[in-house]
Amino acid sequence: MLTQEGRIALTDITDLNLLKAELNRLPPVDAGDYIAELSPQQQAIAFRLLNKNQAIAVFEYLPQEVQEELIGSLHDAQVFHLVESMSPDDRAELFDELPAGVVKRLLQQLSAEERQATATILGYPEGTAGRVMTTEYVRLRQGLTVGEALNKIRRNDEDKETIYYAYVTDDNRKLVSVVSLRQLLFTIPDVLIREIASQRVVRVRTDTPQAEAAQLMKRYDLIAIPVVDREDRLVGIITVDDVVDILEEEATADIQKLAGVSGGDEAALSPPHVTIRKRLPWLLANIGLYVGAASAIAPFQQVISVVPVLAVIMPILSNTSGNVAIQALSVTVRGLGVGEVTPLDTLKILRKEILAGLGTALALAIALGILSLIWSPPQERWVAIVAASVMAINVFVAASLGTMLPMGLKRLKLDPALISGPLLTTILDAVGFLTFLSLISLALRMMAK
Amino acid sequence: MLTQEGRIALTDITDLNLLKAELNRLPPVDAGDYIAELSPQQQAIAFRLLNKNQAIAVFEYLPQEVQEELIGSLHDAQVFHLVESMSPDDRAELFDELPAGVVKRLLQQLSAEERQATATILGYPEGTAGRVMTTEYVRLRQGLTVGEALNKIRRNDEDKETIYYAYVTDDNRKLVSVVSLRQLLFTIPDVLIREIASQRVVRVRTDTPQAEAAQLMKRYDLIAIPVVDREDRLVGIITVDDVVDILEEEATADIQKLAGVSGGDEAALSPPHVTIRKRLPWLLANIGLYVGAASAIAPFQQVISVVPVLAVIMPILSNTSGNVAIQALSVTVRGLGVGEVTPLDTLKILRKEILAGLGTALALAIALGILSLIWSPPQERWVAIVAASVMAINVFVAASLGTMLPMGLKRLKLDPALISGPLLTTILDAVGFLTFLSLISLALRMMAK
Repeated sequence: MLTQEGRIALTDITDLNLLKAELNRLPPVDAGDYIAELSPQQQAIAFRLLNKNQAIAVFEYLPQEVQEELIGSLHDAQVFHLVESMSPDDRAELFDELPAGVVKRLLQQLSAEERQATATILGYPEGTAGRVMTTEYVRLRQGLTVGEALNKIRRNDEDKETIYYAYVTDDNRKLVSVVSLRQLLFTIPDVLIREIASQRVVRVRTDTPQAEAAQLMKRYDLIAIPVVDREDRLVGIITVDDVVDILEEEATADIQKLAGVSGGDEAALSPPHVTIRKRLPWLLANIGLYVGAASAIAPFQQVISVVPVLAVIMPILSNTSGNVAIQALSVTVRGLGVGEVTPLDTLKILRKEILAGLGTALALAIALGILSLIWSPPQERWVAIVAASVMAINVFVAASLGTMLPMGLKRLKLDPALISGPLLTTILDAVGFLTFLSLISLALRMMAK
Repeated sequence: MLTQEGRIALTDITDLNLLKAELNRLPPVDAGDYIAELSPQQQAIAFRLLNKNQAIAVFEYLPQEVQEELIGSLHDAQVFHLVESMSPDDRAELFDELPAGVVKRLLQQLSAEERQATATILGYPEGTAGRVMTTEYVRLRQGLTVGEALNKIRRNDEDKETIYYAYVTDDNRKLVSVVSLRQLLFTIPDVLIREIASQRVVRVRTDTPQAEAAQLMKRYDLIAIPVVDREDRLVGIITVDDVVDILEEEATADIQKLAGVSGGDEAALSPPHVTIRKRLPWLLANIGLYVGAASAIAPFQQVISVVPVLAVIMPILSNTSGNVAIQALSVTVRGLGVGEVTPLDTLKILRKEILAGLGTALALAIALGILSLIWSPPQERWVAIVAASVMAINVFVAASLGTMLPMGLKRLKLDPALISGPLLTTILDAVGFLTFLSLISLALRMMAK
């Protein structure tokens, strides 16, 4: 039955026949979820309850570690049948994870065509359009009529991932035009394809970053986008269901890099030791860096013992400029991520951030100035002025760096999210503390005279 | 021509006829981008260069403020024609922004059917499935044959947002089953729909949160999902192009809330005063809060002047537990966002975070302990032990709060991202400083005896 989230839930089924019926009736993704929750032994049993087609469908939805488990526990014949029937892109993803030996054996068993398809995809680097595309699409030769096209599509639908677009190629397999199933349906059969097909085909190359491909499909509301090689020959398509996943992956990656952590969508559920492995290195590295910031304070212990209110002010200074930096950083990284911002906007944004930064800096400086006045004993009122000025500088630097660093990285064709929040705040603290304490001790020395 | 991002760019066109040709040849979204860049006066001119259909298509892609500008500058007849031809969901979005008076006038001019459609959508609250759905879908009565169905679809394609799914309803308009265009195409015309249509239709209700609808479509790889009312009557569909936008919106909202900022995807490009308005309040509120944290230090100024190394240690303490909190927070919020984590996992995650938190806390405590040893003068070595213990406690609390707070909010059906990074780190600092300094002064007093 449907849970209130609309998902289908299997609750405490003990009767195997009942389970079998249920598992074969469920949508593959739900059956997959159910099986994934079981123990390895139960998984093997449950999976054997699936009838041929359901097994194939469910297998594609299983987590990779479960797929590997099953490949180990099923008979070679079953395994081979499963792998042969997977769509090339999912198969490639699976092969990525399997031990090289197993992959080699499986590849050999595949039909020449399927082997070719998988090899092609595996040939492209992670994160490129070539790696996420599928090689199963509808290709039409030029000069067909609408009727002939529809018949061709009808004839070999089965193994096509989408039939909603058909791509027209010339004799050299070069991509010429695209026609939608919608157009085909609403045109008289004996019209020539070339009369209705659109010559302007938005396409990506095999080495286009997957995120860029996804953004293009989003921009043009495409259900699929063709992938071509350097010679503009059609080699595959990316379908919209992959795009949805890609966009979520990218967003998750941005969020996690900004927070100085990794692990992907499942990070929240990974076991403790994995969590520690994924987070501790970042934290230790950051402490290491932060020693730099803190060491900037060490030499001034004398000053602090004389003006202890500094110990109250410095955290506010650090915390606030840190927040400013994170704000600018997140907004910029996300803007670049969704394609709202391009490196071309650098100047525009720089100008804007400088103005906004100045305004913010002023407001925050005044705030801290007032606070320092309240906290400092009468004879240390002057500290307020220093605090305010350093706050102004630091906040301004924070806003500028938070914007410019990711823009710069993007320009260098690097990942804008490389500069994580923790890293940036650490740098800012180092600078902030140093300026603040140097100015204070300078002031002290001048007063001593 | 195509820019390297695959977008189409118009560069310095001065000849109006050339511009007209270009604008009408471009994909609507690109023409829209070009026009949006122009000055209001130029926009009105450029827009008048578009032929009827292109104008309608382009209008839907224009930013809302530009749409409003145009509605002001065009003749009522043109405006009415544009609005009448918009798809109901886009029209609803536009009406949201327009002054009530204008909306009222436009609604009156609409055909009864179009008015009804828009009114329905506007009737549902922001962020629900009802608000983002379109009322233009293919609906089939039960008992039709495949052939009849295809003919019906052929007859009134024009104003349907997608024809790739057709929804079968009973005499009370209740949703009964769904059939894909693919199925229709690959079945003999005189088969009855009910023989091939799937009874198990994943659906959402008008009041389902848009994010939930998007996650369902992602889960089941749907190109459209039907929206039903309380009586399970079909009232609209959400198409995959909207889902892509919804998922990106949600991710952006999470990122920005985590960073304590707002403004949506375009935040990076908004003018300085807007940026300040969007960010400064958060920052000032945070300083306000942070005064609490800092005030925790104020009473201990005496202690600090005696043991100035504290001023070196405290920033590390605060920075590190802050990072731990942000990591846990981001991972949890994102996990909830993509539906990987549900409130049901609370216990599982709590157990895991406690273990991971302990491990992390231990490692970081040792690290800080060693550092304090290095910085403290011989007679203050004991500070290292206090520092290490407080670090351990604080980091552990940070990891737990960073995970549990968003889970708790989700359980209360609130937005998990409500607890922003800055807010959490401020709380942690307050607690951390207070514990640390109290323990230190306690130790001092004991040694004084």
